[in-house]
Amino acid sequence: MQGKNPAELKIIKLLKSGGAGYISGQSISSSLGISRTAVWKHINSLKEMGFSIEASPSKGYRLGGKKGPFNGVGIASMISTDIIGKEIVFFTSIDSTNAKAFELGRDGAPEGTAVIADMQTSGKGRIGRKWESPPGVNLYASIILRPGIMPQEAHQLTFLLAVAAAEAVGSYSPKRPKVKWPNDVLIDSRKVAGILMEMDSEADRVHFVVAGIGVNLNIREKDFPAYIRATAASLRDKRGAEIDRAEFTRDLFSSIEKWYKIYLGKGFSPVLDAWKGYFGFEGKPVSVSSFNRNTSGICMGVDKDGALLVKTPSGVERVISGDVEAGE
Amino acid sequence: MQGKNPAELKIIKLLKSGGAGYISGQSISSSLGISRTAVWKHINSLKEMGFSIEASPSKGYRLGGKKGPFNGVGIASMISTDIIGKEIVFFTSIDSTNAKAFELGRDGAPEGTAVIADMQTSGKGRIGRKWESPPGVNLYASIILRPGIMPQEAHQLTFLLAVAAAEAVGSYSPKRPKVKWPNDVLIDSRKVAGILMEMDSEADRVHFVVAGIGVNLNIREKDFPAYIRATAASLRDKRGAEIDRAEFTRDLFSSIEKWYKIYLGKGFSPVLDAWKGYFGFEGKPVSVSSFNRNTSGICMGVDKDGALLVKTPSGVERVISGDVEAGE
Repeated sequence: MQGKNPAELKIIKLLKSGGAGYISGQSISSSLGISRTAVWKHINSLKEMGFSIEASPSKGYRLGGKKGPFNGVGIASMISTDIIGKEIVFFTSIDSTNAKAFELGRDGAPEGTAVIADMQTSGKGRIGRKWESPPGVNLYASIILRPGIMPQEAHQLTFLLAVAAAEAVGSYSPKRPKVKWPNDVLIDSRKVAGILMEMDSEADRVHFVVAGIGVNLNIREKDFPAYIRATAASLRDKRGAEIDRAEFTRDLFSSIEKWYKIYLGKGFSPVLDAWKGYFGFEGKPVSVSSFNRNTSGICMGVDKDGALLVKTPSGVERVISGDVEAGE
Repeated sequence: MQGKNPAELKIIKLLKSGGAGYISGQSISSSLGISRTAVWKHINSLKEMGFSIEASPSKGYRLGGKKGPFNGVGIASMISTDIIGKEIVFFTSIDSTNAKAFELGRDGAPEGTAVIADMQTSGKGRIGRKWESPPGVNLYASIILRPGIMPQEAHQLTFLLAVAAAEAVGSYSPKRPKVKWPNDVLIDSRKVAGILMEMDSEADRVHFVVAGIGVNLNIREKDFPAYIRATAASLRDKRGAEIDRAEFTRDLFSSIEKWYKIYLGKGFSPVLDAWKGYFGFEGKPVSVSSFNRNTSGICMGVDKDGALLVKTPSGVERVISGDVEAGE
């Protein structure tokens, strides 16, 4: 975990607010209530992190470019949400952002706390699977949510996360993404983002949810390991240009916050409606494996609770859990 | 956490199998494949724990009484289950057995692992409440279960735990206990045992459940703190005699295992039927508070999913979560 220094975040925000103009060391010093020497030390540490800061002995400091590093300060200085990412816990490398967020959630971390890592050594996907998490290219983020819901309502948040992820991916993709039931984001039938939602609850009350999101942002498709090459997509390859990870994080967090506020205020129905707008399986043949049961047939959409409706020879079956195998 | 020494448990089991007869140090030494000196050291350590072991220079060792101490070895040597308590993790004092079991569950502890403590410094009850956990008198146990179920089915286990706890309490109580919906165990309308079920899950798959049980075994009712004196009961006071905690643990674990095997093999229905046999609210006025809603009326029993049915002026309402306020 990278050391957090609130002063550094404040300095970057001050410099950002100054735009192309310079802000004097004296003015930073008095804004933050710290000495000129402390300002100088923080500026050096920000430069070491990768911020481009220009210094003029007479005028002070200004940012040399809009883009900052992909780290705790860089991301925190970028985002503009009230809840999601209110607290950013950044790691250069971690076993699993979901595992860490879960641990923080158990310790009482506030709603909106986001664990973000440059790489994961044991990135987790759904149903015990692995999520490929190389360094330097993608986004791996896990957010703690504390809605007042029951465990049986928690799957609604997976739809919410899918909508937010599809929205964020869509703003960088030449093609509108689709969602697989319940929550993968696909472009051309290949997975560009995945969601792993875990929760800690009593039988009738959710303590907190960890919403984990992995997005294949800048990895090149040729670099995917062989076992996922046929099923995974890179947003960079689809778009034909690099994506700034901190900017993408800002957009994703804004989308999640927007839908989370709608969900808390108006319930699941508007979320599910938005989700349907991204759903790409209706009328198509699907096969769903769930525990030791397999349901195959034509997808008839989803019902008001988000359950998948599959028309089989023996009637329409309602599937509430499982893994869909099908083309887009 | 107390150090675990498998040799000590083996020695106690050997001595138990010998009944009133002596078992020679040589025979223990060869059974366990350890030296005579090691046997002697373990015997001393067992005596220090509180086991009554008689030694005869010519005949060997035998147990001086059936009862052992209430600790890891004492409990493990007593229980006779295959799954529940397969692994006992005992603490003289711990913050919360549920919190510890949850931590062990996250680390992959096997199904049936039971965390037991002589006292809890932050014992947890349902809905963020406290569970009074003084040392030396009661049982505080949390068991890790790993059934292949979905989060929306997990509340079925709270009924299962209530049945098992009522059964174990019932075998020490002059009166048949009753259960409050969904899972407190009452004698004369006062709580003698409480259950806190927590789980770790994905949206559609439970990773594990921690079933926490607190039983007011030997605490005297006059020693209850004032705030629960009107609502809590002591099994010792109801019975008029002390209860051996390790024996009670054995009986409770046997009941849980019996019902857990029935549940895994035949589903929820037989569990719910047994639960109904202990339910004491049918036909009585109840008031259920759940999140920000309150439902008052006459209790009409429960439906097949275990939801509470309450007859109100506007019809029968189905309550799936909440806290019941009512007489027995």
